[in-house]
Amino acid sequence: MEKIDGDLNKKAAGEKAVEFIKDGMVLGLGSGSTVYWTLKKLGELVEQGLNVKGIPSSKRTEGWAKDFNIPLTDFSQVQSMDLAIDGADEIDKDFNLTKGGGGSLVREKIVDANSQKLIIVADQSKLVSQLGKFPLPVEVLPFGWEVTARKISEMGATPVLREREGSVFVSNNGNYILDCDFNLIADPGLLHKELKQLLGVVETGLFINITDTIIISGDKGIEVLHKKK
Amino acid sequence: MEKIDGDLNKKAAGEKAVEFIKDGMVLGLGSGSTVYWTLKKLGELVEQGLNVKGIPSSKRTEGWAKDFNIPLTDFSQVQSMDLAIDGADEIDKDFNLTKGGGGSLVREKIVDANSQKLIIVADQSKLVSQLGKFPLPVEVLPFGWEVTARKISEMGATPVLREREGSVFVSNNGNYILDCDFNLIADPGLLHKELKQLLGVVETGLFINITDTIIISGDKGIEVLHKKK
Repeated sequence: MEKIDGDLNKKAAGEKAVEFIKDGMVLGLGSGSTVYWTLKKLGELVEQGLNVKGIPSSKRTEGWAKDFNIPLTDFSQVQSMDLAIDGADEIDKDFNLTKGGGGSLVREKIVDANSQKLIIVADQSKLVSQLGKFPLPVEVLPFGWEVTARKISEMGATPVLREREGSVFVSNNGNYILDCDFNLIADPGLLHKELKQLLGVVETGLFINITDTIIISGDKGIEVLHKKK
Repeated sequence: MEKIDGDLNKKAAGEKAVEFIKDGMVLGLGSGSTVYWTLKKLGELVEQGLNVKGIPSSKRTEGWAKDFNIPLTDFSQVQSMDLAIDGADEIDKDFNLTKGGGGSLVREKIVDANSQKLIIVADQSKLVSQLGKFPLPVEVLPFGWEVTARKISEMGATPVLREREGSVFVSNNGNYILDCDFNLIADPGLLHKELKQLLGVVETGLFINITDTIIISGDKGIEVLHKKK
């Protein structure tokens, strides 16, 4: 099995999230090294008799879920999910997120957006006052990606085509990822809309107004943060 | 070689378009059975010494261009094109288009939108007073397409997952096509924006404000229509 980041804060936050899971739930299974710990813990509960089904948001998560014997389903079987648990690369004070460092931002967004509730699990390093230090992942079509990158750079970013081990990185959907350094993002909602409207852009890593509950683990232990309404 | 619709109006309109091609041009090569005749004629001119390069907007067009010995290039080599020639499924009185019946709407739009000029070639049956009789093709991600279809149906359409020979049709980008019957489309520009904003939607077949020149062939012979400014 793949080696996972053993950061104790990630482990603590990831494991805490299973407390929100109830018998009979259909779950959105997020991605990333913090969610790995949620899945591992969930597998133990399934072993003890908990009855849930999950929709994985990446091929990597699907592999983990299978390793931990978590029953899976898909959108041909269910219309929406009761709860999704997912990670994030940045979280601002309004609970807006940047995601996509792992390359599965579109599936994550489809899973997260179609859940009644989304809980984000993260270590404290992910909390920021303003999004943008982490370059924004934007999923784009391979055909004409050079043109799409130029349009994004005209919006004030420096887009870099993501590579892995010397080759262009290809998403679970067969697309490319442009990591776009916008420096600080003044209005994440507006930026998302403008980027999504661009020809060639499939989806952005900005997750706006999508969660009201964040589990953070850090120096002060584990905190469950609720968004003020 | 593949058998092509031998409709004389398609042939006449397609061939007429080569009159706009000048030596040295970089061309966007559209898709469909009318453009086939443009490519065939263009191949004859290349044979006679015309120097052009083309970017094909579908794998089918790429195959035709190779058959006719038209030199090809791509977006890693050129930033934009001098002229694109493409077909359409519907053309309204404002020169807005519905495209995508052939399943290559995204590549066509990227090619068409990045050309200095776009000429649409069509037989007279494509002219309509209002778009929408031809179901609007919308390219969507395979993952969660059921959810995307439901969101589109909430916008007033009847989306049908495109199939070919009993299997789901897959676009040149590896995506699915939903053929969405909106009946008549009151505001094509607005509908495009709303659809493109949807999670899971990659692109729509509405081509808005993208062309000012249409070559139509029909009962009255060949007409070159220019959009009023």
